[in-house]
Amino acid sequence: MTEREKKPLILVTNDDGVEAKGLKALIETLRPFGKIVVVAPADPQSGMSHAITVKVPLRLTKIIDEQDLSVYKCYGTPVDCVKMAFNHLLTRKPDLLVSGINHGSNASTSVFYSGTMGAALEGCINEIPSIGFSLLNLNHDADFTTARHYVEIITRQVLQNGLPKTVCLNVNIPDIETSKVAGIRICRQNKGYWQEEFDQRTDPMGKHYFWLTGYFHNTEPDASDTDEWALDKGYVSIVPLHTDLTCYDTIKSLNQWNFQ
Amino acid sequence: MTEREKKPLILVTNDDGVEAKGLKALIETLRPFGKIVVVAPADPQSGMSHAITVKVPLRLTKIIDEQDLSVYKCYGTPVDCVKMAFNHLLTRKPDLLVSGINHGSNASTSVFYSGTMGAALEGCINEIPSIGFSLLNLNHDADFTTARHYVEIITRQVLQNGLPKTVCLNVNIPDIETSKVAGIRICRQNKGYWQEEFDQRTDPMGKHYFWLTGYFHNTEPDASDTDEWALDKGYVSIVPLHTDLTCYDTIKSLNQWNFQ
Repeated sequence: MTEREKKPLILVTNDDGVEAKGLKALIETLRPFGKIVVVAPADPQSGMSHAITVKVPLRLTKIIDEQDLSVYKCYGTPVDCVKMAFNHLLTRKPDLLVSGINHGSNASTSVFYSGTMGAALEGCINEIPSIGFSLLNLNHDADFTTARHYVEIITRQVLQNGLPKTVCLNVNIPDIETSKVAGIRICRQNKGYWQEEFDQRTDPMGKHYFWLTGYFHNTEPDASDTDEWALDKGYVSIVPLHTDLTCYDTIKSLNQWNFQ
Repeated sequence: MTEREKKPLILVTNDDGVEAKGLKALIETLRPFGKIVVVAPADPQSGMSHAITVKVPLRLTKIIDEQDLSVYKCYGTPVDCVKMAFNHLLTRKPDLLVSGINHGSNASTSVFYSGTMGAALEGCINEIPSIGFSLLNLNHDADFTTARHYVEIITRQVLQNGLPKTVCLNVNIPDIETSKVAGIRICRQNKGYWQEEFDQRTDPMGKHYFWLTGYFHNTEPDASDTDEWALDKGYVSIVPLHTDLTCYDTIKSLNQWNFQ
């Protein structure tokens, strides 16, 4: 095996699209770790969750082809990008999948709506060690200096230690200077929900339309083992996620029901 | 309180769209149980998972307004429909959310891609007792007789017993005659993944495009406590799901890592 073949193969994607600053920051940070293949959505795909494209066909264009770095844009969702990489582009399973760096938090139940975490969970379903990174700043021109520092530290640990076969990491990084970060905290997913408020407007034809807006309602703000608590206190939060949604505690009680 | 106000308020949605036969079968089955409000996607939304619409505004049209039955179509995803109902249309929390009846299985890890289950999980995040029903037949003209029988039995039990606050049910129904069904089985989510094969074609301009195809790869076909096993043996499968993706077993081992 040559030196080049020994390098880890790292698949990179995101949900903000191939032009996003967070993706570029991620690629720059990961390049020293191995051979990088990027398959990212051609257009922003925020809020696309684990969606796949079934109504229209997918298209794929290679846009960068350098030593140890290939970048493709895919006209689909983040999960489409991962599937396209696994099943069409890559000749072997990647050693790592990294998604992000997302512009905005994916802590707590936001993991359900997130295209960034959809891609990481898809890696996890396919038994690839996977990480989703998010910075708590929605701005397209956010400063990724602190995020890059922690991407490097956490990626090195995952490559060294591996992850259990069906576990991926949801990493959120506070939008503060590196020197102000309190540390890294392993957390559980916070409970909570988005309280939506629909902004109702009227178009020039007199018809109503609605913009989805809202704010996160934290139902356990004082629980110190959650990601929301850690981020609020200036920590980088890491939540290990798995893809088994079964609520085992409930199986026994459902078996008592009288299904007649 | 009048008799009418005492009736359970049931929110209904799906991912196959407002015209789907499975939705109509569901509405007919649920009408005797209470006041029904349907908010369903205007267009089919299979594979849309937990996606929300953020790039374009939503529109909503009332299409049926009968005694105890209102039907709206929403130009968005299944989760958009649920959010629109909770935050714009309904004046109180529904007693139950029912999604489906999906044309096709949502067993095992298909729960991640499913718009039907995205809607049910959204109900669950909002602490509404929620059920997703799916029939193992993709045909638009499928026979829902068996499915309706089990929708009735299971809905009655959920209305009687309730569900833990953050648990919803993923119910899959085999495509066989009612008399041939082996019974109802409470299961865990099967492990497995979709093995994709991209069908590559060339358009009239000479450019490649890809259709997503594939088959489900069951990584534990002999495990008799899973939904796939139960369905294969002719049972209706019920998997209780929760929305906490945390892998608690991994928290301890991650705390041993040396994040330097």
